[in-house]
Amino acid sequence: MSDTLKVVIVGGVAAGSKVAAKVVRLMPDADVTVVEKGQFLSYAGCGLPYYISGVVVEQAELMSTPIGVLRDHTFFQKVKNVRVLNRTEAIEIDQKGGRILVKDLEKDAESWLDYDKLVLATGATPVVPPIPGVDLSNIFTLHGVEDAEGIKTTLAEDKARDVVVVGGGLIGIEVTEALVQKGCRVTIVEMLPQILRILDKEMAALVAQHLESHGVKVLTGTKVESFEGNGKVTTVVTDKGPIPADMVIMSIGVRPNVSLAKDAGLEIGKTGAIKVDTHMRTSDPNIYAAGDCVECVNMVTGQACYVPLGSTANKQGRVAAINVCNENDAFPGVLGSTVCKVFDYCVARTGLTEAEAREFGCNVTTALVPAPDKAHFMPDAKLLMLKLVADSKTRKLLGAQATGPGDGDKRINVAAMAITAGMTVDDLANVDLCYAPPFSPVMDNIITAANVVKNKLNGYMVGVPAAEVHQMLQDKKDFVFLDARSQGEYDQVRLPGSTLIPLGELRNRIDELPKDKEIIAFCKISLRGYEAAIILQASGFNNVRVMDGGVVMWPYEKLT
Amino acid sequence: MSDTLKVVIVGGVAAGSKVAAKVVRLMPDADVTVVEKGQFLSYAGCGLPYYISGVVVEQAELMSTPIGVLRDHTFFQKVKNVRVLNRTEAIEIDQKGGRILVKDLEKDAESWLDYDKLVLATGATPVVPPIPGVDLSNIFTLHGVEDAEGIKTTLAEDKARDVVVVGGGLIGIEVTEALVQKGCRVTIVEMLPQILRILDKEMAALVAQHLESHGVKVLTGTKVESFEGNGKVTTVVTDKGPIPADMVIMSIGVRPNVSLAKDAGLEIGKTGAIKVDTHMRTSDPNIYAAGDCVECVNMVTGQACYVPLGSTANKQGRVAAINVCNENDAFPGVLGSTVCKVFDYCVARTGLTEAEAREFGCNVTTALVPAPDKAHFMPDAKLLMLKLVADSKTRKLLGAQATGPGDGDKRINVAAMAITAGMTVDDLANVDLCYAPPFSPVMDNIITAANVVKNKLNGYMVGVPAAEVHQMLQDKKDFVFLDARSQGEYDQVRLPGSTLIPLGELRNRIDELPKDKEIIAFCKISLRGYEAAIILQASGFNNVRVMDGGVVMWPYEKLT
Repeated sequence: MSDTLKVVIVGGVAAGSKVAAKVVRLMPDADVTVVEKGQFLSYAGCGLPYYISGVVVEQAELMSTPIGVLRDHTFFQKVKNVRVLNRTEAIEIDQKGGRILVKDLEKDAESWLDYDKLVLATGATPVVPPIPGVDLSNIFTLHGVEDAEGIKTTLAEDKARDVVVVGGGLIGIEVTEALVQKGCRVTIVEMLPQILRILDKEMAALVAQHLESHGVKVLTGTKVESFEGNGKVTTVVTDKGPIPADMVIMSIGVRPNVSLAKDAGLEIGKTGAIKVDTHMRTSDPNIYAAGDCVECVNMVTGQACYVPLGSTANKQGRVAAINVCNENDAFPGVLGSTVCKVFDYCVARTGLTEAEAREFGCNVTTALVPAPDKAHFMPDAKLLMLKLVADSKTRKLLGAQATGPGDGDKRINVAAMAITAGMTVDDLANVDLCYAPPFSPVMDNIITAANVVKNKLNGYMVGVPAAEVHQMLQDKKDFVFLDARSQGEYDQVRLPGSTLIPLGELRNRIDELPKDKEIIAFCKISLRGYEAAIILQASGFNNVRVMDGGVVMWPYEKLT
Repeated sequence: MSDTLKVVIVGGVAAGSKVAAKVVRLMPDADVTVVEKGQFLSYAGCGLPYYISGVVVEQAELMSTPIGVLRDHTFFQKVKNVRVLNRTEAIEIDQKGGRILVKDLEKDAESWLDYDKLVLATGATPVVPPIPGVDLSNIFTLHGVEDAEGIKTTLAEDKARDVVVVGGGLIGIEVTEALVQKGCRVTIVEMLPQILRILDKEMAALVAQHLESHGVKVLTGTKVESFEGNGKVTTVVTDKGPIPADMVIMSIGVRPNVSLAKDAGLEIGKTGAIKVDTHMRTSDPNIYAAGDCVECVNMVTGQACYVPLGSTANKQGRVAAINVCNENDAFPGVLGSTVCKVFDYCVARTGLTEAEAREFGCNVTTALVPAPDKAHFMPDAKLLMLKLVADSKTRKLLGAQATGPGDGDKRINVAAMAITAGMTVDDLANVDLCYAPPFSPVMDNIITAANVVKNKLNGYMVGVPAAEVHQMLQDKKDFVFLDARSQGEYDQVRLPGSTLIPLGELRNRIDELPKDKEIIAFCKISLRGYEAAIILQASGFNNVRVMDGGVVMWPYEKLT
């Protein structure tokens, strides 16, 4: 049939296979071809760390449907009616001719494929900087199935014990957990002053502490200068000294694969990724793009951003497919919502960090709120540490971060919805969320956090970050660091330079405190600290602040 | 000081103690008195089932702060600067005089308390209908700490084995789980045709099946006619026959305590609860009310509703306190969001059920979507069964329900946020939620569910409820009930009257199907059923529907 829509999709992993599946659902007679350079298609790249750790046993599980059918050529052909050309590389787009040159990598044979609509889902490639020795063996990235197999083989054969992970981003952290579970001693080397730049520094510091409690060495502000070894890597040389290494994982980040698009003259965005409109259409109306090769709009700032994530790739693939089929759908943008398992911590975030919000020019108010993630009397309640970032002027929520063993992504998803809807912290404080003791505190953690921001915005509470207090202590500033906890809690653990007056005794012992000095109150989570500040203010103390996050979120040394 | 604000709060449990705590934070010098009829204040009523089961060991845990301080008189007086009169009943309000008559139940002495602002947090009382024999011993409600102690004592002394729970609502279900854990054989007797009216009937049926899999007998459409016994209850007589009972829990529901308000001439709403504005102010500007004694606005319908929940009480208490202190805050209303643990099921809901939406006059489109709650290749992925209800005209989400072992409340909270923000299913399908394999599928369950509703609204898919198919089977209607699963799945479990053609064979075997009969396609979760329907429609079959929810959510008999 001459009126059959010919769709060629370049890339068959996340976005590409989603586009194919959706196009044939909308247009069962469409002539759909997927061109995939690699051997594998439609695999769950995000599952690779769990395949390395052994949580996922079989490689095939990452490439199967939920009911266990392998998503291979036969599946795509027979079930989906999609032709798959794997081990086939797209070479050149002939836009005027409406055709694309592809090369069968097995047969080394080139041919042209006609298209009515072309979809680029070319993905991204791990960044591997030209550090001397980077070509030594046992230095891996973790991007494709082949990488995971290489790492697994090395672990099995060489019993790699000392592993250096270069780059403390999401993939670096996930692979670290997997390697520790396989018995490796892992060192994370991060050039920047903190790991996980998706978080603010004090939140990232709490994650780093947790990594270290599991035996991981976290070296921030450390630059890799070279790799040494004899065929196989043996040493990672950094500006702080050498580190022994039986294996190295390079997880510095990825860059979008845009050469095909660039060569065809398609518009490339500021971020270096392919520019698309909300319909996922490139600057050529017959060419769409989706997934890790495109740039997105940050829904908070309205600015272009590059946030390659599998969840986004799948949604974009669906939107692209709908528009390819001449229906109408739009992809609104992203918030950078993400979650990461770090041993028994759930680390999640959405929207802008405080640093990003300030950089964007916002005047922000933040809250750090640690609390049990369920009714505190439930024995399985776990600590959840939340940070909210709000615009001081509009009172709108801009971002949220979670860490700790508690159920963080549940709250971050609520925050993502609030940001999407443009809600203020006042709105968020009164939303009707599910409550029962096995699932949440009676005031959900995110509602309490919204109330803390409200208290600050309304002038009831003046907060001070732990970092500022820590600096004041180091500078030997003259202030009272008032601990409002009980004697028993104080005896267990205390902060340097602090003075204990339990909240219940404060009214009677108020004369012990000087009115001419600043008082910084705190407690375990800074609720009693807040109440102490209120009592002091009511008694004529005019220079009182409350330390954000209390003892629980103090990321520095504690005395025991 | 004559300018000290005098605040009297009637009721010291959830809303009342929240009002007290917030008032003294905002106005540390306010003269705050809490009048509480019972012995206990500020206890977590929602935790009582977990105290009965022994998950919560000590009664005191329900009355303590997260750091273990008992919230008793001393605590309120010393820490909060709040006077507590417990075992004290509020008798009469003298609105003109700005005073309230209270009676010390220990000393049997009455006195007047002056107030500038009065807050009614009088709570609710369990409904106990005048059924013959209802006064026999070992018949309990579960509302206060005393009830829980009575039940625990009976369990300890009498080794109550056969327990009848009258009323299959939230409290009835929660107490059922607790009693089964204590070794009781439990029968739930529900007058209505389904348990858990907060859910639609097919969702409630799945919960009932789960209860029965744990040995609980669920009798719906069954009316209690009398209780028999000799001092202690021994038998519950129903219209379907007698049931042996060593103990009975009456959990029919609660009614708001409004007599004090009513006697004072305050406006009572249609629901029978106290009417308040968004500031939680009653018809008397100096009298506020909050918690289980007030009626709310349903944010979807705009209509008055009575949904007594601890989470709402706490938020309302905070809002009331802020307004009492002449600041400004507003409570927007509720969605009826709630969650309930039913053994290893998480049962949650928000907004309108399909039945409620239809009753309200909406034309609705629904989706039933069962799927793993995490990436399907993660070994701890659990089944989550979602139902979405959307307005067919506006495409707005109206409600959502979840059941199954998977992480349901996480998705229902997202739905609650979407409803609050007035989002359409199109909006919901593209929200940026957190993804990583240990936490969610790459397309989160709620996003997939939104896409299913979109497919129906856009005419790509015509659904049919299991109930309708079941009726068609019973009526011996002539249609093809097409199972698109694999032979292996079919051999394990199949639905009555179904014909198997695995999806992968459908294109080749399409001639086996008649074009003149209706075809209802399904599979395990009805995704392959949907793809089968698409293939059939493309081949000229014009009468094809897809059964909602597939085999997984089929609430009737299955063949094995």
